[in-house]
Amino acid sequence: MNETIKSIQNHRSIRKFTDKQLEESVIDQIIKSAQSMPNSINGQQTSIIVVRDKERKAKLAELAGGQPWIDAAPVFLVFVMDFYKTNLAAQKNHLNQLIHESVEGTIVGTFDGGLAMGGALIAAESMGLGVVPIGGIRQNPAEVIELLKLPEYTYPLAGLAIGYPKDHSQKKPRLPFETFKHEETYNKEGLMEAIDEYDHTMEQYHNEIGREQGVNWSGYTANIYQHVYYPKVYPTMKDQNFQNDK
Amino acid sequence: MNETIKSIQNHRSIRKFTDKQLEESVIDQIIKSAQSMPNSINGQQTSIIVVRDKERKAKLAELAGGQPWIDAAPVFLVFVMDFYKTNLAAQKNHLNQLIHESVEGTIVGTFDGGLAMGGALIAAESMGLGVVPIGGIRQNPAEVIELLKLPEYTYPLAGLAIGYPKDHSQKKPRLPFETFKHEETYNKEGLMEAIDEYDHTMEQYHNEIGREQGVNWSGYTANIYQHVYYPKVYPTMKDQNFQNDK
Repeated sequence: MNETIKSIQNHRSIRKFTDKQLEESVIDQIIKSAQSMPNSINGQQTSIIVVRDKERKAKLAELAGGQPWIDAAPVFLVFVMDFYKTNLAAQKNHLNQLIHESVEGTIVGTFDGGLAMGGALIAAESMGLGVVPIGGIRQNPAEVIELLKLPEYTYPLAGLAIGYPKDHSQKKPRLPFETFKHEETYNKEGLMEAIDEYDHTMEQYHNEIGREQGVNWSGYTANIYQHVYYPKVYPTMKDQNFQNDK
Repeated sequence: MNETIKSIQNHRSIRKFTDKQLEESVIDQIIKSAQSMPNSINGQQTSIIVVRDKERKAKLAELAGGQPWIDAAPVFLVFVMDFYKTNLAAQKNHLNQLIHESVEGTIVGTFDGGLAMGGALIAAESMGLGVVPIGGIRQNPAEVIELLKLPEYTYPLAGLAIGYPKDHSQKKPRLPFETFKHEETYNKEGLMEAIDEYDHTMEQYHNEIGREQGVNWSGYTANIYQHVYYPKVYPTMKDQNFQNDK
C-alpha cells in the first residue's frame, strides 16, 4: 500500500488543534489540490472561501449549531456551489442560464463540491494536518450567505476546519465492506444482517472510547433521518435562485 | 510538494486504456479508499457498483450517450446515493425516514458521493491508473437504474472508468486561481476579466492539442447550461422516491 492510500484509509476527524498557523503556501497547496479535481463539463462550478478572521470563524461556529472546532481551527474553508461564474459566461455570450433551476444542476454543483473537498482533505492530511468536514453550515444558511457575501446562483455546501492536530481521535469503523461494494448490480441480500452486525460494532466502539452506552448506528441514523434536519436549505436555495423544480 | 499532492495536482482524464486487467486487490484498495472518506452524520449514504461484465459495460457506454471509454476500461464504478440502507435502519427502529424527500437529503447524498469518488480517484491515480469521471450515466437514468437493479431510495450519481493508461492526455488549464480561492468573503471583482483571460487560455490550449478552433470556455459552457442537459434526472428521482420538494 503506497503512502497516499495509507493516508486516505487512515482518515479520521480531528476537532482539537494546536495554535500553530498554516503558512500561506500550505493553504494554497490545499486549495490548488481542490481546484485540480475533475469537474462536470469543465464548468468549474465550485469556489472556496478561506476564512481566517477570528470573529467570522466564531460566528460560523455559532451558526453551525455550536461547533467550537470551527473557531479553534486556524483555517476554515467553505465549499461553495458556484453557478455565478457560469452565469457570467452566459451573459458574455448573450445566453440565458437555466441549469441552476434544475435538480440536475444541484447534483452537478454538489457532486463537484464533494470532489473538490476530497482533493483538499487528502492533500491536507498528507501534510500531517487534521481536518473535520462541517455540514452544519447548512443549519442557518441565510446568515452564512450574508456573512460570506455569497451572490445569487451560489450556495454554501459544506465547510472544512483545518489545523495541526492536538490529539488523534480513533478511526471510526464503517459498515461492512460488502454493503458498500456491490458486484455488477445492487445486492440487497444480507443488508439487514450487516446492519445488525455494525450496530454491535458501533456499540463496542462507543464503549471503548468512553461514550454513553446504548448508542448504535441504526438508531442514531434513523432518529436523525426521520426529519429533514436542515429544513432551511430548500427555501434558502430558492432565495439564491436555485429552484429544484425541474 | 509531497507525492500525494503531486499526484492530485497532476490529474487529467484518461480515455484510452491498455487491455491489462486490474487485480481484485487493486480494485478493493480503490473502493476501501472511497469508503474511508468522511460522510455526513456517519449515515454512510453511498454505495459503489463495480461493473466488469463486458455486455453491461457496453450497455452503459451506450446509455451514457456513446462513451466508448466506459466499454474500453476494464472496470467501471458507479457511485450511488444510497438512502436504502438508512431506510433499513429506520425500519429496524420503527421510524419513518423522511430525509430522502428533501433537497437537503439530495445534497448530503450527492456531496458524500463526490467525496467518495475523490478518494477512489486519488487512490487509483496514486497507483498509476488512469481514470475518467462520467456524468453521462444521468442521461438515461431509468435504464441505468434497471440495469444495475438499484432499489428505491437510491440514485446513480456518476461513474468512474478506470484502467491502465494507453496515452497521457494533456492537463487542462483551469480558471485563474483567484476566481477559485476567495479571501473571507466572495469576491466578484475581476471575475469577468478572469473569464476573458481564461477564454484565451482555452483557445490556445485547443489549438495546441489540435482541436477545432474558436472553442472558448464561456461559449462552450453557456451553450450547455442554457439547457437542463440531463432533463430525465428530476422525474426519475421521483420514481426512486426522491421528491426534492422540501
